[in-house]
Amino acid sequence: MKHLLLAATAAASFTLPVTASEPAPTPSPGEIAAAAPASDWIAIAPSDLLVMDLAPDAKGKPRRVVIQLTPAPFSQGWIGNIRKLAAAHWWDGTSINRVQDNYVVQWGDATEKKPLPEGLAAVPESEYVVSRTGAAGWDAARAMKRSAPIISDPYASSQALWGWPVGRGKDGELWPVHCYGAVGVGRNMSPDTGSGAELYTVIGHAPRHLDRNIAVVGRVIGGIEHLSSLPRGTEALGFYKTEGERTPIASIRIASELPAADQPKFEYLSTEGDSFARYADARANRRDPFFIRPAGGADICNIPVPVRPVAAK
Amino acid sequence: MKHLLLAATAAASFTLPVTASEPAPTPSPGEIAAAAPASDWIAIAPSDLLVMDLAPDAKGKPRRVVIQLTPAPFSQGWIGNIRKLAAAHWWDGTSINRVQDNYVVQWGDATEKKPLPEGLAAVPESEYVVSRTGAAGWDAARAMKRSAPIISDPYASSQALWGWPVGRGKDGELWPVHCYGAVGVGRNMSPDTGSGAELYTVIGHAPRHLDRNIAVVGRVIGGIEHLSSLPRGTEALGFYKTEGERTPIASIRIASELPAADQPKFEYLSTEGDSFARYADARANRRDPFFIRPAGGADICNIPVPVRPVAAK
Repeated sequence: MKHLLLAATAAASFTLPVTASEPAPTPSPGEIAAAAPASDWIAIAPSDLLVMDLAPDAKGKPRRVVIQLTPAPFSQGWIGNIRKLAAAHWWDGTSINRVQDNYVVQWGDATEKKPLPEGLAAVPESEYVVSRTGAAGWDAARAMKRSAPIISDPYASSQALWGWPVGRGKDGELWPVHCYGAVGVGRNMSPDTGSGAELYTVIGHAPRHLDRNIAVVGRVIGGIEHLSSLPRGTEALGFYKTEGERTPIASIRIASELPAADQPKFEYLSTEGDSFARYADARANRRDPFFIRPAGGADICNIPVPVRPVAAK
Repeated sequence: MKHLLLAATAAASFTLPVTASEPAPTPSPGEIAAAAPASDWIAIAPSDLLVMDLAPDAKGKPRRVVIQLTPAPFSQGWIGNIRKLAAAHWWDGTSINRVQDNYVVQWGDATEKKPLPEGLAAVPESEYVVSRTGAAGWDAARAMKRSAPIISDPYASSQALWGWPVGRGKDGELWPVHCYGAVGVGRNMSPDTGSGAELYTVIGHAPRHLDRNIAVVGRVIGGIEHLSSLPRGTEALGFYKTEGERTPIASIRIASELPAADQPKFEYLSTEGDSFARYADARANRRDPFFIRPAGGADICNIPVPVRPVAAK
């Protein structure tokens, strides 16, 4: 027998029972997502994708990282800056400068001297959160009724909303959560909130203590292995010591600025539908054959919103 | 100004205020641990360390991974097997066979044909947990009174006990938790529990749904970057496709079997003392200068027990 060793987290094909007398299958979370109807999948607009092409690896293979920007109403001040930085090709020729194990990979201008484009906003700390009763004009209460279960953990309540893991404060605040792959904005000491020119992504256990302290502006949905498997930096906080250790960034673009044939296409499973509710329940109560004791719960970062590339037609 | 970018997680030096009129410092968790008296640090016996030497890297640099075995009374059946496998030099010439992003690195015999040493125990599933009121002869209730706070999360209650993150069931069960760096025993389908010959370590967000479903037998306390930065496998579940992708394991030994000069030395911060209680509180309520809003809580895997190498004398 081929060793199974550890349960799959990836999607696998979902097989219906052949006869009514067979026991009902207990699909894994990935199988539930794979079996969801096409109507439950939402295409991500190319204008909401940030495409980072690193220099090819030692064997000459391309390394592309695709980041989905956080949906409105979250973090839009910084995301406006990021769109300007990408349009100005500001990141081209910058580099990956820091890889700290079980924490973050960070990129930007290692020299800290490259002039920023004009017109970037100075975003206030108040925009780390949004108010669900505010004047933004979006009906959060209605959306939440149709959404995934509310989870309580030592940090806050949280819920998957509009395709994103979202924290929910007792004071009516909502904020995007730092899970594995989250992309955030590096900053100096408060009240600085960062411009968006220095970005990082999480490559370890979710650093939820950063929630409401740093802006989350996106999540890596493709190619995170090109970041997470980089050599760790040996200086304090995982910064690289020498120029030669840094991975050059060839370019960062909003996908809609790329030639059509070069635009990556992704879709995510709606968090407001029945498929996601079943998926979330299965993440919290693993009943697929490998498991003997379902946990009875899962934290928000262990219920990652399914995202997948859209096959070319 | 040098960009701070993100708060440190590493220990830094702790400076006392120079005059009484200065504001009291708000030390980071790492500073609290670094300032703990020597009496709060507990040496780890070489007989409880598993030392894995990988083949040198492409530049010829050695790659050593040090694993602390889970303390009694947890998982001792599998740990007995692991001691026998190490004594038989069984892992020498085996390899790292699987690297799945945000999940696990796994090692053992890729051929699945290497005979196991005689006398390995078949450990029952009941040993995934221990009873705190059982006949094991250890006074868990007393230890828990002096220990770190009890945390409730979607999985279970949990607490740092005897230097380890431990889950606490309502039914009186205790079990070691799957955090980043946890080492567990690969297995086939239930009721198989694995021998200990196939091991994995966590390199992503804590897969707590594996708790009580797979045996946790240790944690990586040194050199995890030699595993977490390996290229991800491209086959299902992150297995490597070809022999050439696998990283050879030169040897795995219990440290006490190594020459004295080659034995790694580590110590951990007692989880039953005041320093750990202050450290845990600071992890849950970050008051060091970078933070503007303390979280008010932390999950058990975000309060990692401080472990550090002991400097040679």
